[in-house]
Amino acid sequence: MNNQDSKSTKRSTDHDNSSREFIQNSALVGSGLMMAGGASSMFAAGSKYGPEVHTQNVPSRGYAAFDTSGVLKPWKFERRPVGDNDVLIDVKFASICHSDIHQLKGHWGSQQYPQVPGHEIVGIVAAVGKNVTKFKVGDRAGVGCMVDGCKNGTCCEEHGEQYCPDTVFTYGYPQESSPTGISQGGYSSNIVVNDHFAVHIPENISFEEAAPLLCAGVTTYSPLLKFDLKKGDKVGVAGIGGLGHLAVKLAVSKGAEVTAFTTTADKVDGIKGFGVKNVVVVDDELKALGDYRGQLDYMINTFPVDYDVAAYAAAVKPFGTYTQVGMPEGFSVSANALGLAASRVNFNASLIGDMKETQEVVNYCADNKVLPEIQVISAEQINQAWEDVVAKKARYRYVIDAATF
Amino acid sequence: MNNQDSKSTKRSTDHDNSSREFIQNSALVGSGLMMAGGASSMFAAGSKYGPEVHTQNVPSRGYAAFDTSGVLKPWKFERRPVGDNDVLIDVKFASICHSDIHQLKGHWGSQQYPQVPGHEIVGIVAAVGKNVTKFKVGDRAGVGCMVDGCKNGTCCEEHGEQYCPDTVFTYGYPQESSPTGISQGGYSSNIVVNDHFAVHIPENISFEEAAPLLCAGVTTYSPLLKFDLKKGDKVGVAGIGGLGHLAVKLAVSKGAEVTAFTTTADKVDGIKGFGVKNVVVVDDELKALGDYRGQLDYMINTFPVDYDVAAYAAAVKPFGTYTQVGMPEGFSVSANALGLAASRVNFNASLIGDMKETQEVVNYCADNKVLPEIQVISAEQINQAWEDVVAKKARYRYVIDAATF
Repeated sequence: MNNQDSKSTKRSTDHDNSSREFIQNSALVGSGLMMAGGASSMFAAGSKYGPEVHTQNVPSRGYAAFDTSGVLKPWKFERRPVGDNDVLIDVKFASICHSDIHQLKGHWGSQQYPQVPGHEIVGIVAAVGKNVTKFKVGDRAGVGCMVDGCKNGTCCEEHGEQYCPDTVFTYGYPQESSPTGISQGGYSSNIVVNDHFAVHIPENISFEEAAPLLCAGVTTYSPLLKFDLKKGDKVGVAGIGGLGHLAVKLAVSKGAEVTAFTTTADKVDGIKGFGVKNVVVVDDELKALGDYRGQLDYMINTFPVDYDVAAYAAAVKPFGTYTQVGMPEGFSVSANALGLAASRVNFNASLIGDMKETQEVVNYCADNKVLPEIQVISAEQINQAWEDVVAKKARYRYVIDAATF
Repeated sequence: MNNQDSKSTKRSTDHDNSSREFIQNSALVGSGLMMAGGASSMFAAGSKYGPEVHTQNVPSRGYAAFDTSGVLKPWKFERRPVGDNDVLIDVKFASICHSDIHQLKGHWGSQQYPQVPGHEIVGIVAAVGKNVTKFKVGDRAGVGCMVDGCKNGTCCEEHGEQYCPDTVFTYGYPQESSPTGISQGGYSSNIVVNDHFAVHIPENISFEEAAPLLCAGVTTYSPLLKFDLKKGDKVGVAGIGGLGHLAVKLAVSKGAEVTAFTTTADKVDGIKGFGVKNVVVVDDELKALGDYRGQLDYMINTFPVDYDVAAYAAAVKPFGTYTQVGMPEGFSVSANALGLAASRVNFNASLIGDMKETQEVVNYCADNKVLPEIQVISAEQINQAWEDVVAKKARYRYVIDAATF
């Protein structure tokens, strides 16, 4: 994650410089109104935006945090102009991931503010750059945790875009082309991304149900896919929140015999409804884990907090695999080396998934009706929703209606 | 490691009870001299011990710690009588492992004292039980980290004795058959173990060079073997002490291209002599690791202290394997989940090796002249040697001459 030196292309640097000059010379700077609302007569057919979106910054409305309190407030800001390889998406829904809360509260390092979170984003393509053939105006599209990158690097083809040093993550990441200097996320009215980092949202899934698939879906789908899940495999899922409940549904849909481990007793009935074989409530002393020692073929843990890795990993058979996908405060998890040695389980952590997998999980979930449990909220409910996520009250994903930004 | 309830056999319980009665009724108790030295006229041919070793406790002299200071002093104690499946070994050499220091100083939990450490033990078989066919009196034999266990359990056949809940580790482990209530290790004149847990020491290796193979050798050999090391593989070894220098020599002997990572600059020349391709000195800021990001096929880390797992693991290629064999204070190592995710390396910890592998590494090292670097010391030098091990001054294994106990 050493990407402080963004390797932007000549094109984006030029855009950036010209847009900065424009900002410096414009009396409209700061109003955020330059191209909004009143200029509707300039819009091209099929889009509310006119041709100037390719040369001038795009105004956007969002909810941003302004300091480590993480309190979100309405904020008007600008996106970069739509470049030759970019798509502009009018956001319809954006859902809330625990990562949004961690990053905006500074749990993962110091942040630049104002910052707009959100990396589970769906909407309608409103403009495309001249090189873009993947999308046309009016297409349904989704954006996940990445918005830009080298795209041509062999590293991406070999291991996935999320491991490429040139990749720009969706919010709070240094991005020279962005008028604010950092990428700004999806709790907003629109977003401009390189077309490689947008996926198609098929017609057979609703926007609001598709949104959580862009991070929670692919983050759990990718390691399950790499494990080469087979029918009848005994799969454990620990932490049944936004990611975990999708991991459960995905594993069940693949024919696995799923055991869910939760720390929240009142989730049990709901989880049973997802088709699991067992639900285990684990208390602070972790005693309930003892009964499952060495029982599972594979396990995925989504806890967004520090926990005893070795104690959970021991539920997997010796030489089996245990994957961590949750990212706790400071990213630190505690591993007892003797415990890991005694269970002889392979422990790895997995970072989202690549763009191919992102498209795949959206299609798979749409076709197989593997749908997240969601609650649609308005923008003004976001701060309460964040508190509820931390308090483990979400059932299971809050999805923000972008019409309310 | 929940083996507080030792499942001893009826036989050993009987031995234990009768030996306790004997001790209570004997005026010689505590002298430790009952069967030693002066009673030589009773000894069977080929052994200094008489037939009473099968019915009465066996006196032993060793060096024990008496509290968490870990200061070792001479101590006379008794071993269990030699049971039907046991061998009595007169110890010739025992070498010093960092684990001895950790355990005796209470770094891994509270201990029963007096406790004799030592789990790298070689010597000559002095008596065998009536069921023993594997050894005869006069054979060269070695004992590692385990001395007793279920032996018949399928768990051992499937995954190795070290993962069996019934296994008794060589010192400080609850053991009903032991007159002291716990197993007592190899810093001593003799040891009684179940024959399954002793290996043959071939004639083509010296006792003193064989000793370190019983723990340091098999602990590094076992994961290298499981990795299925091939000629030309790029292998990293971090922590070049007792275990690490054997890991280097083993990997070099298998044809690997070895990169050694050490925190001790003055070890560099010595390490080059082992046939490595690169030696990297890593300081506290870990900067030197950056050059090796994603370069290695496999890596083994022997640090007996807490460290940044993800930073070292990142030297391995994505989806490669990284094995921890060192056991730090409290067994705890710090894993940065984002770092692990970004490198996408499989992290596991490995516990010694099974008995088959123990015999195999001894034979392999003898046949291929893969020999540890050793310094032979006398018993009275042990306390200084422990200090030198902690201060990273060992080059690379201290081997105690048991004649000096």
